[in-house]
Amino acid sequence: MHSKNKNIINPIVLIGLLFVFTINLACKNQNDMSQVETDDRLTIVEQNDIQRIEPPNWWIGFKNLSLQLLVHHPQISKRTPYISYQGVSIEKVHHADSPNYLFIDLSISKGTKAGRFNIVFKKEGEDDLTQTYELKSRIKPAEDYLGFNSTDAIYLITPDRFANGDPENDIVENLKEKKIDRNDGYARHGGDIKGIINNLDYIQDMGFTALWPCPLLTNDMPQGSYHGYAITDYYQIDPRFGTMEDYLEMSSKLSEKGMKLIMDQVANHCGVEHWWMKDFPFKDWINHQEHYENNNENWEGVKAITTNHRRTTNQDIYASKIDKKNMNEGWFVSAMPDLNQRNPFMANYTIQNSIWWIETANLGGIRQDTYPYPDKDFMSRWAGEIMNEYPNFNIVGEEWTSNPLLIAYWQKDNANKDGYNSNLKSPMDFAMQEKIVKGINDEETWATGFIEIYRALANDFIYVSPSDIMVFPDNHDMSRIFTQLHGNVVNTKMALSYILTLPRIPQIYYGTEILMHDFDKPGDHGLIRTDFPGGWDGDEVNAFTGKGLNDEQKDMQSYLKKLLNYRKTSSAIHEGQTIHFAPENGIYVLFRTDNNETVVHILNKNESPVELNLKRFEEIGLNGKTLTNIITDASVVWQDKFLLEDRGSVILTTKSD
Amino acid sequence: MHSKNKNIINPIVLIGLLFVFTINLACKNQNDMSQVETDDRLTIVEQNDIQRIEPPNWWIGFKNLSLQLLVHHPQISKRTPYISYQGVSIEKVHHADSPNYLFIDLSISKGTKAGRFNIVFKKEGEDDLTQTYELKSRIKPAEDYLGFNSTDAIYLITPDRFANGDPENDIVENLKEKKIDRNDGYARHGGDIKGIINNLDYIQDMGFTALWPCPLLTNDMPQGSYHGYAITDYYQIDPRFGTMEDYLEMSSKLSEKGMKLIMDQVANHCGVEHWWMKDFPFKDWINHQEHYENNNENWEGVKAITTNHRRTTNQDIYASKIDKKNMNEGWFVSAMPDLNQRNPFMANYTIQNSIWWIETANLGGIRQDTYPYPDKDFMSRWAGEIMNEYPNFNIVGEEWTSNPLLIAYWQKDNANKDGYNSNLKSPMDFAMQEKIVKGINDEETWATGFIEIYRALANDFIYVSPSDIMVFPDNHDMSRIFTQLHGNVVNTKMALSYILTLPRIPQIYYGTEILMHDFDKPGDHGLIRTDFPGGWDGDEVNAFTGKGLNDEQKDMQSYLKKLLNYRKTSSAIHEGQTIHFAPENGIYVLFRTDNNETVVHILNKNESPVELNLKRFEEIGLNGKTLTNIITDASVVWQDKFLLEDRGSVILTTKSD
Repeated sequence: MHSKNKNIINPIVLIGLLFVFTINLACKNQNDMSQVETDDRLTIVEQNDIQRIEPPNWWIGFKNLSLQLLVHHPQISKRTPYISYQGVSIEKVHHADSPNYLFIDLSISKGTKAGRFNIVFKKEGEDDLTQTYELKSRIKPAEDYLGFNSTDAIYLITPDRFANGDPENDIVENLKEKKIDRNDGYARHGGDIKGIINNLDYIQDMGFTALWPCPLLTNDMPQGSYHGYAITDYYQIDPRFGTMEDYLEMSSKLSEKGMKLIMDQVANHCGVEHWWMKDFPFKDWINHQEHYENNNENWEGVKAITTNHRRTTNQDIYASKIDKKNMNEGWFVSAMPDLNQRNPFMANYTIQNSIWWIETANLGGIRQDTYPYPDKDFMSRWAGEIMNEYPNFNIVGEEWTSNPLLIAYWQKDNANKDGYNSNLKSPMDFAMQEKIVKGINDEETWATGFIEIYRALANDFIYVSPSDIMVFPDNHDMSRIFTQLHGNVVNTKMALSYILTLPRIPQIYYGTEILMHDFDKPGDHGLIRTDFPGGWDGDEVNAFTGKGLNDEQKDMQSYLKKLLNYRKTSSAIHEGQTIHFAPENGIYVLFRTDNNETVVHILNKNESPVELNLKRFEEIGLNGKTLTNIITDASVVWQDKFLLEDRGSVILTTKSD
Repeated sequence: MHSKNKNIINPIVLIGLLFVFTINLACKNQNDMSQVETDDRLTIVEQNDIQRIEPPNWWIGFKNLSLQLLVHHPQISKRTPYISYQGVSIEKVHHADSPNYLFIDLSISKGTKAGRFNIVFKKEGEDDLTQTYELKSRIKPAEDYLGFNSTDAIYLITPDRFANGDPENDIVENLKEKKIDRNDGYARHGGDIKGIINNLDYIQDMGFTALWPCPLLTNDMPQGSYHGYAITDYYQIDPRFGTMEDYLEMSSKLSEKGMKLIMDQVANHCGVEHWWMKDFPFKDWINHQEHYENNNENWEGVKAITTNHRRTTNQDIYASKIDKKNMNEGWFVSAMPDLNQRNPFMANYTIQNSIWWIETANLGGIRQDTYPYPDKDFMSRWAGEIMNEYPNFNIVGEEWTSNPLLIAYWQKDNANKDGYNSNLKSPMDFAMQEKIVKGINDEETWATGFIEIYRALANDFIYVSPSDIMVFPDNHDMSRIFTQLHGNVVNTKMALSYILTLPRIPQIYYGTEILMHDFDKPGDHGLIRTDFPGGWDGDEVNAFTGKGLNDEQKDMQSYLKKLLNYRKTSSAIHEGQTIHFAPENGIYVLFRTDNNETVVHILNKNESPVELNLKRFEEIGLNGKTLTNIITDASVVWQDKFLLEDRGSVILTTKSD
């Protein structure tokens, strides 16, 4: 994963590199830019005798000066490791239950220089085993790892289904699932990182500023590997998605565009085909490990230890011990073993893995899967350690709940009565999503319709920071928004425009812009994750170019493009104050406002023209001002009444440009 | 309201009274027990020249040493009041906008003795007006006013519909609504305090320990006066319900039985026929007062200023100013003017009125109507001042919301981000009520049925004190529980038994015990508040005696009686720990447990017999113990499996008696 032929560097090149380093603190591609080595280290001859050492490299300059290496090699526990490198010392060597593991605690003192060194594993009477290890320089200050936030709009992609940039890697011989079948919603379709890279211009032009691809790490599973959530190697890009170089290229191209890359990570579980399932380091490396070891040929046996999914046990002061235990220690599904984060080595492994990816791929955020399932104290430590190293970074955690109490519970610094602090800045807002759909679909009555949305937003009073919460019309696990809104285009625009105007971090799933749907079998994962048209050679329809899209699709695409591009520069939407007025007569009005601009968002369910009396909104201070419709560019003076021609949303701004 | 012929007391009687006072600190009827007067005060000749002075009397010994008298009398503002009584001084005299009012700030220094004194209103050239005023001694220590709590079970009564103890007062000539018609759900039916007094044994035998009658104060309204929420005199018992003496008799009889009287109070609004509506002391005595004065013959005009009922504006950080204002200052309905608690005289008036009733009627609690509608800062002060005087008292506030966030917001000491502290110990749990009904009615699936109840209870983690929250199957404003559960008796038992086992303060509406319903027109207020059979002479059915009840009714009555009487002595239910297990296979099990006992509550939706495997509940530690079914008295050993014969609830206890 790191190149092996760069350990001798010409001093002039070195000075040049240092110069580049200095002026390019925010540069995009940090890979292999930090081989700043002292003379005596140049003598090191690179050796790779060890099967596996993780993390495969590390960096100098972290706040946390400790590093714990996992070494996996036959009978490695019989050996003693030695390191001779200034500033680096072995603090402790831990033996595992399996003889094939060593865990080495390194201390990297302040001022240690970047460079390579050898770890020599000695055993009397046998030849030494030697592994070269690298400590890199960090390519930019920790503060410059800027996580996604409410100024962003995130494009979520299921990589297997977006675009196939390299048909060569569709099938990879040494991996278990070799089937490729675009007619099977649960088989691989061939989408990959190159496909994403090829279409970054499209994504940027649409107005997105951040990209969240579902996991791209190796899922060497016999089936269902396309979705990416059954990781079998935490340090490897799935070869069917591409190479590490592809991933870093995607990251650096995004960075050039001023866009952020969000990595989808999974701390709760791995795939049952993960390499360590054949040789567990400890007896408690995964939960219910013994049960698995006794039943690994017996699918029923594994099923019996899946989680109860009763996530409220994380908060419930009345939850029984057994329910809590089943929730947190049960397997997510029988193909996904539950990692035991209470094992301190597993805990360190996971934290270091996350930091390794942030630093390696210059990440602009992490999306953490199934947030309430792992040990919650560990998750607090995990997020805390990451945020400690990268104070301006961000993480969004998936808690699929329509209960704002639980969303609030998981947000950093919430005053939880049990003292729990998640350290997670961005929970997900399934509650708001549900109410937006319901409120738009429901008839307007005293207690239904827009009032449901209005009330849901009113719940923001409990959140530590509402604008750090992620909201979305749908995602890769939910029926498509167009389906949820029964194929009504106007309603879909209402949902999208509202979401993009809220004090939130919005996320849009790929294909929403062309009204992708799952009408035929609502909620079917395969169907939700339909191929993006134009992503495959020979596709008749090409949504990237517009070829073959119907009028409704083109209209929605251009609507969303206008909206997103407007949002990009709208400080009022990014960080402005929010004021909304209780829905009346099928009309719901929300304002976002700061010193620069005021944005007016009107949702209207009246089919026939109605005049909105503007007197009610006097306190906003718009009287007599000229506003621009951000979709039609039409101007209007805000006075007395505003004509709403038909059902739909209207977005006006005081900015004129 | 206080007798006038006791101002000369024989010294021997006086000593006797003092003795009684000393040994009877917790005595029941405090009325006129405190005429402890010094010699010079005995010379006072009682005079009542003033039309109205409120509060009509006060007490010595409060923490708050101030008292503000409202004096209402023609042209009283032209006069200056004088008081000569040791320890009492006039701090300030406030003139109102109307010449017919004075507000007098009294200071009552510590150590002031109980007694009567005259307030003399002087004006040059005119005769003095003199009003005798009394400062009473308090009949018991402030700490002994014990408010309702989770050891109680509250019986809620609509007094007009419970029992007619005195047909003589059915129609009162000088009051506006004279119609009495038991066939009209919205007319008066004649129920009264005597009717309640006559049936206190029944209520006690049923197992209730507290009584909450809907308001009994005068509602001199032309129509709809039966419900009591349009109060037209805050210091008078409605003559159609009885006299002050009746009210005090009810209180003292309850007290003798060890039961608590909860008074239903209304701080938000009065009835439009309240006496002050004809002569407002201030221009801002009520909200939208000017509008009313200009439109008081125009019903439409009044309608235009009713509240928007958008209660979330109390918390919503995005609420518009105009919506907040409309919510808090709009009238509840056009017949109920909205009192302006930001007027400091109104504020004092309301607080003193509440304290006056606690002290006069030895209350065991207050239920405050429409809690989120008055000015919320005032409500915090109101509850705070009451609780300051009576540290062990309790107040329950009505916020009709199924949103636990709002329930939590209103509970005392909740860590609200806006810093608001309601000082209200007991909010109402409409959220739990809704989910209990829904969970019992819904089919058992992964996300519906008992799991909805389980999840709702799991929300308790946010409450400062769950066991101080009031829960109920229904109340006087809701469809009857038997109707909500579609006439299913078993389901009704499940709801009731669950409610009575929860860590809550349970409230049951009269008639629930005999399956009263509103099937014919669900939710119709008149029908919900049907006459309790047997409360009227000549009723064919008599639920007090059981005469004419059908088998289902008798069964429910005896079921509830057993349950309530068990609950009375169950420390585990009162204050024990709660542990519940996520529903499985249509069975939901909840435990309440303390050092004395464990109560097991099993809800089961299986129609056919099922065996419950007890292994799952090991952590409770019941293995091998003998438990008693509190309904059937049957004994069972808790071991391996427990047979559930049929759908319904089973309540077991480890207590044997």
